[in-house]
Amino acid sequence: MTYCVSINVKAGLVLVSDSRTNAGMDSVSTHSKMRRVGVPGERQFIICCSGNLATTQGVFANMERDIRDGAPESLMTVRNVSEGAAYIGALSRREQEKTPGGPVFEASFLVAGEVLGARCRSYMVYPEGNFIESSDQVPYLQIGESKYGKPILDRVITMNSSLDEAALCALVSMDGTMRSNLTVGPPIEVATYMAGSLQPGQYRRFDEDDDYLREVKRNWNKEIKVAFARLPGIDWYADGSA
Amino acid sequence: MTYCVSINVKAGLVLVSDSRTNAGMDSVSTHSKMRRVGVPGERQFIICCSGNLATTQGVFANMERDIRDGAPESLMTVRNVSEGAAYIGALSRREQEKTPGGPVFEASFLVAGEVLGARCRSYMVYPEGNFIESSDQVPYLQIGESKYGKPILDRVITMNSSLDEAALCALVSMDGTMRSNLTVGPPIEVATYMAGSLQPGQYRRFDEDDDYLREVKRNWNKEIKVAFARLPGIDWYADGSA
Repeated sequence: MTYCVSINVKAGLVLVSDSRTNAGMDSVSTHSKMRRVGVPGERQFIICCSGNLATTQGVFANMERDIRDGAPESLMTVRNVSEGAAYIGALSRREQEKTPGGPVFEASFLVAGEVLGARCRSYMVYPEGNFIESSDQVPYLQIGESKYGKPILDRVITMNSSLDEAALCALVSMDGTMRSNLTVGPPIEVATYMAGSLQPGQYRRFDEDDDYLREVKRNWNKEIKVAFARLPGIDWYADGSA
Repeated sequence: MTYCVSINVKAGLVLVSDSRTNAGMDSVSTHSKMRRVGVPGERQFIICCSGNLATTQGVFANMERDIRDGAPESLMTVRNVSEGAAYIGALSRREQEKTPGGPVFEASFLVAGEVLGARCRSYMVYPEGNFIESSDQVPYLQIGESKYGKPILDRVITMNSSLDEAALCALVSMDGTMRSNLTVGPPIEVATYMAGSLQPGQYRRFDEDDDYLREVKRNWNKEIKVAFARLPGIDWYADGSA
């Protein structure tokens, strides 16, 4: 499995991905699920994937080949991120059709970025190739094991979150997911993009023994317990039912 | 969908259930998913259910009829909670076999309690009728929409948690789940059982507008933001990759 999240706030974009892949519990490996491509001053894209590894590797390989070969359609030719999402969706469908076999070959993608003259956007591409955009009300999209890490995003992220806040919240969301689900694991990749900049943003890969990631884990675990201890004690009698 | 959790710590048991049922988005209703039965000084059981409403209602109806009729096997005759779980599993299988149709008629149960001469126990009964027990390492069991509310249980619950702490943690776990998933909703029922007491424990039903539940929601939301604000700011440069 996988966990990736894309956050699109006023300040820009944050994408976070894990790196664990598995074909059964006895076939666990590590592959990056994030790609960053762009031309400074013209376009920037960050793409994350989940699903069948052969499909996602095929999509990333074709996406990079189309750029290298100057193909008529590639992330270097699309006029906006929506066209980029449709392009990735088409590559994904084509890759899946090579090996007909149903859901086992499916893949999903997060496609986020900005193209000169268009707006900073974030999309989630379904296995069928169609896609949805995040909204001001729910400024994030998730693929893979999305449930464990959703409550913290719902509580913390708003359109006014800074990129560093959003990145930290995504890391906390990832930490809770890794703790609860073995199929999501490090290294964790985090990339940001500042809206309007058209320049590559911050990027960091956190390995399992990364000091900062460990400090965040340790602190969050401690802070959650402190927060919990401050809740009002349970009131058994208010409704007279006890 | 449903969310129920059963916590079995040294102090005893806590079970929490939501009350929302739905057969499609346009057929949403409210039914209690918890039953408490027992004989003071001899036996106490708390049972929660998830899954097909006809199946779970059938199981609860038969469970109560067997007690009323003094049937040879019922929760009043089993010698321990494990036999109680096997009995509920058998009722569930029988109910499902009445309407062959596969997973749509499936149901799962949490069966917890204590019988004089045996130990305080908590089991999760699968649709197939077999069951598992919670452990000292993971002292809780969940049925239904379990993922959203798992991280907080993992962080807070230990074998040394008090019943009030465990009940509050289960409420917070439920709150995060309700916030993230429409198919889980109030009223929330909470029941506790003090290990060794063989007496009914605390019970409370929290309606949507319950003052205490609202205070917990509001406080937790605030405390999470405070906890988040205290985390160390993201360090983009420690690995030299930025």
